[in-house]
Amino acid sequence: MGTKVAIFDSTLRDGAQAEGISFSVEDKLKILTLLDDHGIDYIEAGNPGSNPKDLEFFARASSISLKHSKLAAFGSTRRRDIRVENDDNVQSLLLAATPVIVIFGKSWDFHVTEIIRTTLEENLNMIRDTVAFFKSKGKEVVYDAEHFFDGYKASPEYAVKSLQAAVDGGADSLVLCDTNGGSFSSEVGEIVRKMVSLFDLPIGIHAHNDAGMAVANSVMAVENGARHVQGTYIGFGERCGNANLSTIIANLGVKRDYDCLPAGEYRHITRTARHIAAISNVAINERDPFIGNCAFAHKGGMHIDGVNKASSSFEHIDPELVGGQRRFLMSEVSGRRMILDKIWEVDASITKDDAVTDSIMKRLKELEHEGYQFEGAESTFELVIRKQLGKYRPFFELEHFKIIGEQPANGEYGSSAIIKVKVDGKSEITAAEGDGPVNALDSALRKVLDRFYPELSNVHLTDYKVRVINGRDATAAKVRVLIQSTDGDSVWTTVGVSTDIIEASWIALVDSIEYKLLKLEEARVLA
Amino acid sequence: MGTKVAIFDSTLRDGAQAEGISFSVEDKLKILTLLDDHGIDYIEAGNPGSNPKDLEFFARASSISLKHSKLAAFGSTRRRDIRVENDDNVQSLLLAATPVIVIFGKSWDFHVTEIIRTTLEENLNMIRDTVAFFKSKGKEVVYDAEHFFDGYKASPEYAVKSLQAAVDGGADSLVLCDTNGGSFSSEVGEIVRKMVSLFDLPIGIHAHNDAGMAVANSVMAVENGARHVQGTYIGFGERCGNANLSTIIANLGVKRDYDCLPAGEYRHITRTARHIAAISNVAINERDPFIGNCAFAHKGGMHIDGVNKASSSFEHIDPELVGGQRRFLMSEVSGRRMILDKIWEVDASITKDDAVTDSIMKRLKELEHEGYQFEGAESTFELVIRKQLGKYRPFFELEHFKIIGEQPANGEYGSSAIIKVKVDGKSEITAAEGDGPVNALDSALRKVLDRFYPELSNVHLTDYKVRVINGRDATAAKVRVLIQSTDGDSVWTTVGVSTDIIEASWIALVDSIEYKLLKLEEARVLA
Repeated sequence: MGTKVAIFDSTLRDGAQAEGISFSVEDKLKILTLLDDHGIDYIEAGNPGSNPKDLEFFARASSISLKHSKLAAFGSTRRRDIRVENDDNVQSLLLAATPVIVIFGKSWDFHVTEIIRTTLEENLNMIRDTVAFFKSKGKEVVYDAEHFFDGYKASPEYAVKSLQAAVDGGADSLVLCDTNGGSFSSEVGEIVRKMVSLFDLPIGIHAHNDAGMAVANSVMAVENGARHVQGTYIGFGERCGNANLSTIIANLGVKRDYDCLPAGEYRHITRTARHIAAISNVAINERDPFIGNCAFAHKGGMHIDGVNKASSSFEHIDPELVGGQRRFLMSEVSGRRMILDKIWEVDASITKDDAVTDSIMKRLKELEHEGYQFEGAESTFELVIRKQLGKYRPFFELEHFKIIGEQPANGEYGSSAIIKVKVDGKSEITAAEGDGPVNALDSALRKVLDRFYPELSNVHLTDYKVRVINGRDATAAKVRVLIQSTDGDSVWTTVGVSTDIIEASWIALVDSIEYKLLKLEEARVLA
Repeated sequence: MGTKVAIFDSTLRDGAQAEGISFSVEDKLKILTLLDDHGIDYIEAGNPGSNPKDLEFFARASSISLKHSKLAAFGSTRRRDIRVENDDNVQSLLLAATPVIVIFGKSWDFHVTEIIRTTLEENLNMIRDTVAFFKSKGKEVVYDAEHFFDGYKASPEYAVKSLQAAVDGGADSLVLCDTNGGSFSSEVGEIVRKMVSLFDLPIGIHAHNDAGMAVANSVMAVENGARHVQGTYIGFGERCGNANLSTIIANLGVKRDYDCLPAGEYRHITRTARHIAAISNVAINERDPFIGNCAFAHKGGMHIDGVNKASSSFEHIDPELVGGQRRFLMSEVSGRRMILDKIWEVDASITKDDAVTDSIMKRLKELEHEGYQFEGAESTFELVIRKQLGKYRPFFELEHFKIIGEQPANGEYGSSAIIKVKVDGKSEITAAEGDGPVNALDSALRKVLDRFYPELSNVHLTDYKVRVINGRDATAAKVRVLIQSTDGDSVWTTVGVSTDIIEASWIALVDSIEYKLLKLEEARVLA
């Protein structure tokens, strides 16, 4: 095993500064447990001085015994011209009762004189005093040198003095922060190398992505001797975000021999990232390295051909090493090979020259033209193939449905749906109310089918996504609805397209139900 | 002005290989014109050998006279063991009739023997012959050395020989491609420096983002002597995408002194990126450097305080240099200062200690708790402030509306809306059909208000976004609807939240209409 690099996750602190992020205490506890299970070394989880709600979190977190991670609270040096023990923020930090305290202080002379408005000397005292105070309380102290790279470029001597003040206070590690995110990798490499040679303590890196280089800067820092990397697991944070730890860990631990996670955990990188995204209620950027849905998706015909001959021809790593999955996309540039792979999953006897292969291709092109995308909706794709192969029978027939939404002058808006279906010649009609038309329709459909297929009772929707395909005509535009369903064991996704959101949802709902019934039938045949 | 770096955009070729991208010929012509206006040096717009539709594009593009850009077509070296003039792909490339031809060839010995399956010697002949053929036709030839970095790491001697073959054929520039996107910045810097010292031709860089370093690798290449950068303007491309040119251009041309664009064009970077995203029908990642909506958005209280004292304290560049805008976000960590700024836009006489300031804060917190976000919905935010200040009167009153959606057994799904409103004591009722319930409601609302406010006739919706706030309960979850409207001159955005998509849309629609009527009234008062 290679050189140890400590991984320091700030999703719960710096990540909470991202636009659109708002964690509840419950959310934070869930992410804490997830990161601990994953083997992250440090978890920075709040700034009790600036956000009193964080103290509630730390109180509850203290009852969780972490298996691997050390919990950290983050705060500023004491304010100018007061004794450290009289500073409210310092006292709040102590109340968090974490084994690790992260203290940030100023390394850029401009910030000292213009932003916090004190003398250069007093700033050094503030750093030294505050670090020493927490050391006297038995804490591990990580010193975050805010704006270190900008400060070093403006006044190298003062920036180094500010680090020395932390060392004099007894800091356990020195983290160089590119707070404004504007540094280039060449600068970061050079400055980190100098600091590693000047100080005996472990040097860390904290990068932001404003110049699009946070990952490269972090890796470059490690190549130049840094042994502690701060970031947020999926990269969100103030402005353009923090360094994306999932990318950095994969680069250092999978592509190189650094020791960032317990050995078995690299394969959980994708799963961990998606889990954090779900709790944070943000979408993973599907083009994100390693963890994005597109990361190992091939569209060009030559690329697909190459990967089929040798995966390393167009993949920089084996997707399984990070728990990812290779995908071949259907499109005018992707060729038939991957469609054949899907057809063979349904019927291995079909050949590429069969007439039915052509008819499936043709049908897929028609649907794509209408706005369908099967990327990510494999269940609908399978149903399309089955329909063309004649390996499909509908499990129910719609007679009609009607949705009514009413807004009286000062009352509550309400939605209801009436639905009538026929199964094996028997009709059934019912109605349901719901929060919105799609929810009413979903409830009514399950209710009316219950008499015929009671085994559907454990199926429910876990995600509902609406994508406006063509933004130009606003509410008259086509929409694509993706529905994710689960029966508690497996998860499947279906898609519907229409200019009408209700119709698109209906198509996806029907596919979801049909797919589940089909799988139940197959299981019965095999049993 | 600094050193010239040629910018080579492949949005229309490598970008078209991205998941979810499908350009029509019209789309491609629009992007071509946009990039030419922006002053991009080279525009690679298709691969006529693998996509016959591209020839139609090149035929139509030839009638456009470009002001600045050179148009390029992309294709492979000739196949093995045939004469170059007998190769179909080579002939297709010639038919494109572009002044620039980009030829890609193999530099990695493994690809030569395992993927295209020929001898190392024949591969060199293929490169030399094909380049020489296009030179004999008077073309500028850019040679793309596919997998150059992987090839160089595996067998440096052969990789260099492959470049020499292109030089021998008469190539005008040599582009080193990190085709699999897995190279680190330190490697790229070192290898580019060596090639710059070995060859007299301009060296280019073509990076992919699979390790999250495409931007840093491109900038590192330029710092080490590369003078030609390939990428796609907003970064989409095969798998994790190509190097994002908007980020690279801002880094090289705004943060450093390289000459990448005509002087006045740097301020159009954000606009150009958003325009390309709209035509490509993809969403800009809002955390993207420079061009994202979050790029200059500040949430932390200390950051907002710092930026108010000196913008460089937490911004690596002045947002205006790239046509971006600073934003202060409202949230529990952002403090009151920025809310005050918004209040002052409505009424400059309010102070921070007024009771009404507190009541506005309280109302904002309530709405945020319900799921509202005012980030990006400033018009609704202004209406909230006006309502609290008593500077708002409703322009109409809803009596009721009803939406009906019907799906007969085998017919078309249809939506219609009935609406009744009252203005100054006079009632009016009407109905409209639409593609979907929201469209029907939008049409009915405009129709019923036409009698009272004919000036609304030029208002229409330009974007309609639905965000499921809480994915856990699927169709019963709360949704946030954002509506963007325009009157041809200005653009405004409003937001509504409800568990019911229709109600959320209704709230946002009403705000959009009220906001427009309010602005008309203000304009009349001022006139």
